[in-house]
Amino acid sequence: MFQSKSLESLVAELKKLPGIGTKSAVRIAFHILRTPADEVRLLARDLAAVKEKVRLCSVCGNYTEAETCELCEDPRRDTSTICVVEQPSDIHVVESTGVFRGTYHVLHGVLSPLEGVRPEALRIGELVERCRNDGVSEVVLATNPTVEGDATAYYIAEALRKLDVTVSRIARGVPVGGELEFADQLTLARALNGRRELE
Amino acid sequence: MFQSKSLESLVAELKKLPGIGTKSAVRIAFHILRTPADEVRLLARDLAAVKEKVRLCSVCGNYTEAETCELCEDPRRDTSTICVVEQPSDIHVVESTGVFRGTYHVLHGVLSPLEGVRPEALRIGELVERCRNDGVSEVVLATNPTVEGDATAYYIAEALRKLDVTVSRIARGVPVGGELEFADQLTLARALNGRRELE
Repeated sequence: MFQSKSLESLVAELKKLPGIGTKSAVRIAFHILRTPADEVRLLARDLAAVKEKVRLCSVCGNYTEAETCELCEDPRRDTSTICVVEQPSDIHVVESTGVFRGTYHVLHGVLSPLEGVRPEALRIGELVERCRNDGVSEVVLATNPTVEGDATAYYIAEALRKLDVTVSRIARGVPVGGELEFADQLTLARALNGRRELE
Repeated sequence: MFQSKSLESLVAELKKLPGIGTKSAVRIAFHILRTPADEVRLLARDLAAVKEKVRLCSVCGNYTEAETCELCEDPRRDTSTICVVEQPSDIHVVESTGVFRGTYHVLHGVLSPLEGVRPEALRIGELVERCRNDGVSEVVLATNPTVEGDATAYYIAEALRKLDVTVSRIARGVPVGGELEFADQLTLARALNGRRELE
């Protein structure tokens, strides 16, 4: 396809990235060729650096370069409330709302019998330990609103049942700014069932 | 934003790539963190490799890892016809049509008084030399159908006027599969002016 083996190889590697198809990969590869070598080295160095330096926070499982992450270290965060998410990237999304002031717990996956992901593979034991020992009063389950996310949420709720913690699940309903006409039946049904009295 | 300096740095570098906004950059960065280190090394290696190995074909200016590119070396290509393009990536696009069997000449830019790109900065002198010495009978100007692309095409046509070569420009018109309703006025005007008798 191209007149260069290394160019072909780069395109093949770029195509493995999420959201990058053949056209984007070719476009990025040609952009790389026009970019000064110094800048490309920066990108290559950063790619290697994240894999070397970034590890999991020993408390919550978030990505960090230290023993524990900045959120767990932050004295202003409310450690009595834990928001449980599937992936570290979900922390980023929840944080962007500015609504949650507690700490997090990252499962690094969801229960999935089809893909052979059993409870032991997720960080549920660590969560139970935190709830037992660290004065936790509420656990907010913010796994994705999918079949796997729901099943995982129920499993965790069950695991925490005997402990003295309130377990909640993020609300499902019509998205803000969305139109009912375009909402799917299941979401609309959830929104109706989950209706709340106006104050 | 993140709990890792190297992650932030990677996102900043990724955002410089064409077609990659903040959301895509974050998504790719988190994907990199979940990818085995070996695979990430492959990508980093390929990024460095293209900058080290890839250079310009001494004949046509295409990207190559050898002295001359595979297209120039290919004995099946018709060396009497040269397709002039702005960038090496355009060769890839023209080749994908399977229609052109000649060779190429890459300008590596277009005339642009605003950006200070003068004729000497493009590989026009090399093109004139090829036309003069290598038995070229036709030059197809396939610069982009933009103001700069057109101006560059006219400049090249002028530079080749005294030589015994036919100079042509790729046709402008409504895109195949497109609808007249959505064509802009200029394109439609070009399509009307460039109408051809049905055989």
